Amino acid sequence: MNLIALAGGVGGAKLAHGLALAAPEEELTVVVNTGDDFELHGLHICPDLDTVMYTLAGLANPETGWGLAGESFGALEMLGRYGAETWFRLGDRDLATHVTRTARLRAGDTLTQVTAALCAALGVRPRVLPMTDDPMPTMIVTDEGELAFQDYFVRRRWQPAMRGVRFAGTESVRPSPAVRAALDGASVVVFCPSNPFVSLDPILVLHGKALADWRKRGGCAVAVSPIIGGEAVKGPAAKMFRELGVEPSALAVAEHYRGLLDGFVLDQRDAAQVDAIAALGMQVRITDTLMRNDADRRRLAAEVIALAGEA
Amino acid sequence: MNLIALAGGVGGAKLAHGLALAAPEEELTVVVNTGDDFELHGLHICPDLDTVMYTLAGLANPETGWGLAGESFGALEMLGRYGAETWFRLGDRDLATHVTRTARLRAGDTLTQVTAALCAALGVRPRVLPMTDDPMPTMIVTDEGELAFQDYFVRRRWQPAMRGVRFAGTESVRPSPAVRAALDGASVVVFCPSNPFVSLDPILVLHGKALADWRKRGGCAVAVSPIIGGEAVKGPAAKMFRELGVEPSALAVAEHYRGLLDGFVLDQRDAAQVDAIAALGMQVRITDTLMRNDADRRRLAAEVIALAGEA
Repeated sequence: MNLIALAGGVGGAKLAHGLALAAPEEELTVVVNTGDDFELHGLHICPDLDTVMYTLAGLANPETGWGLAGESFGALEMLGRYGAETWFRLGDRDLATHVTRTARLRAGDTLTQVTAALCAALGVRPRVLPMTDDPMPTMIVTDEGELAFQDYFVRRRWQPAMRGVRFAGTESVRPSPAVRAALDGASVVVFCPSNPFVSLDPILVLHGKALADWRKRGGCAVAVSPIIGGEAVKGPAAKMFRELGVEPSALAVAEHYRGLLDGFVLDQRDAAQVDAIAALGMQVRITDTLMRNDADRRRLAAEVIALAGEA
Repeated sequence: MNLIALAGGVGGAKLAHGLALAAPEEELTVVVNTGDDFELHGLHICPDLDTVMYTLAGLANPETGWGLAGESFGALEMLGRYGAETWFRLGDRDLATHVTRTARLRAGDTLTQVTAALCAALGVRPRVLPMTDDPMPTMIVTDEGELAFQDYFVRRRWQPAMRGVRFAGTESVRPSPAVRAALDGASVVVFCPSNPFVSLDPILVLHGKALADWRKRGGCAVAVSPIIGGEAVKGPAAKMFRELGVEPSALAVAEHYRGLLDGFVLDQRDAAQVDAIAALGMQVRITDTLMRNDADRRRLAAEVIALAGEA
């Protein structure tokens, strides 16, 4: 059973890791948002790809979910002395990833090729695919004007009120052919518990039509709610729902993905929303969706796979 | 009295630091060899410029003479995991220098401008000037073929026998205009105790003619021997003399620079060579030339300045 996981950063990486634990690794492909990618200090940085890669490699910082465990910050301190901006906390080992990626991209490799090489070097067995090899930067429309994603997310700590999201460059972006090929061979697609607006929507903008065609051919798509008890486990998802005038809930997530899903997994705390979600035409499963450790990741992934078998 | 120091790496940096301690810092310009510069991991690395900068900033690693004190090597370890070559020991803080330089060069700044910005950020008061803004890589002709400088010097630990030196790209290299302007305003040029073949000769290839003209107009050039008691304090200078069929000595250094110098400082251990060096038309001074600490650097610098006053 070939599985595809659609993932953004920390939450998505955790479930992708669970899927790698619960299913044969070689049957898993993780398609990752690259709308967060940006250039800093002349380096090409892909925060979501790196979070997924480090998590699958077992190297992620368990405290933050992003970055590397046991990281040092000597380069960042020195960059600060040189007057560079230091709000993006680049670790020393992490910096090696960006340096290597940037050199290979400049040498003409695609982001897909570079990602495969980095993952192979770190012993990551599932395939990790950027959603596209082209730039498609996510712009956050806020009360204070339009902000580049990392500017909004890291530098401003997602405090400005969001009014909308714009995906720049969509007119020229080519969806990743490797993602399309993976979709052709997949039987299940999992929408990981990532931010719907800024993590999975960019992937869906590029691959949503292909996903719909694939479902018509019998493919099964299931999602895990990133909202538990009306709040996001991490990040601005709940705040964004509110700022767009929607009460954050598992139901709101299901409505956001309406027409795209066969199944939906929500947390036991949100059991009251089951009927309303089922009414959207989705098979529903209730469980503990909070991933505190590897065992949680694996168990949730197994539940997701089981639901896909039924939906 | 405006002073120019011609310097390569560690030995040159030490005397340049001594000159900064012995004379008003704002009257000192250090012209640095860039023949060692190379690209690694997509980064533009200038080993001699960095050694001079770190030394003048008081940040150099006192054990090695190059690199930064208290350095960590997390990025290098990770670069190794990615399959990159790790024979060039890039520290984490040092990496920030290369990342910053590379980004600014890509943005269109000259190496002279980038160097000035980096030095200013680290509080370096003397001017530090690359000999040129253009690439002029030093190639070492060896028994095992021609090797790029860092390949010979670091990776092969200067073990292959040297048969000659080739400065690549000289037909298109433009000497630094900032160096020419500094020379016009200088009264003394100091040849630091750097390797004659691979540290100072590149500078002289570019600026030797201008230096000769400046001496005709009354300028005074003095050198400090990098050879003490027939050996180099550090690096392959003595080995290179031998491989070229010349017995390494202060006299051999003076002969190498014959016609370019008004004065020559040699170590007390080499006092027997004084007459032969004086016979080359140089004013000679004997002292302890080994720089063990800051006090040694300052004292030697003061002796050099005193000799320049006499020569």
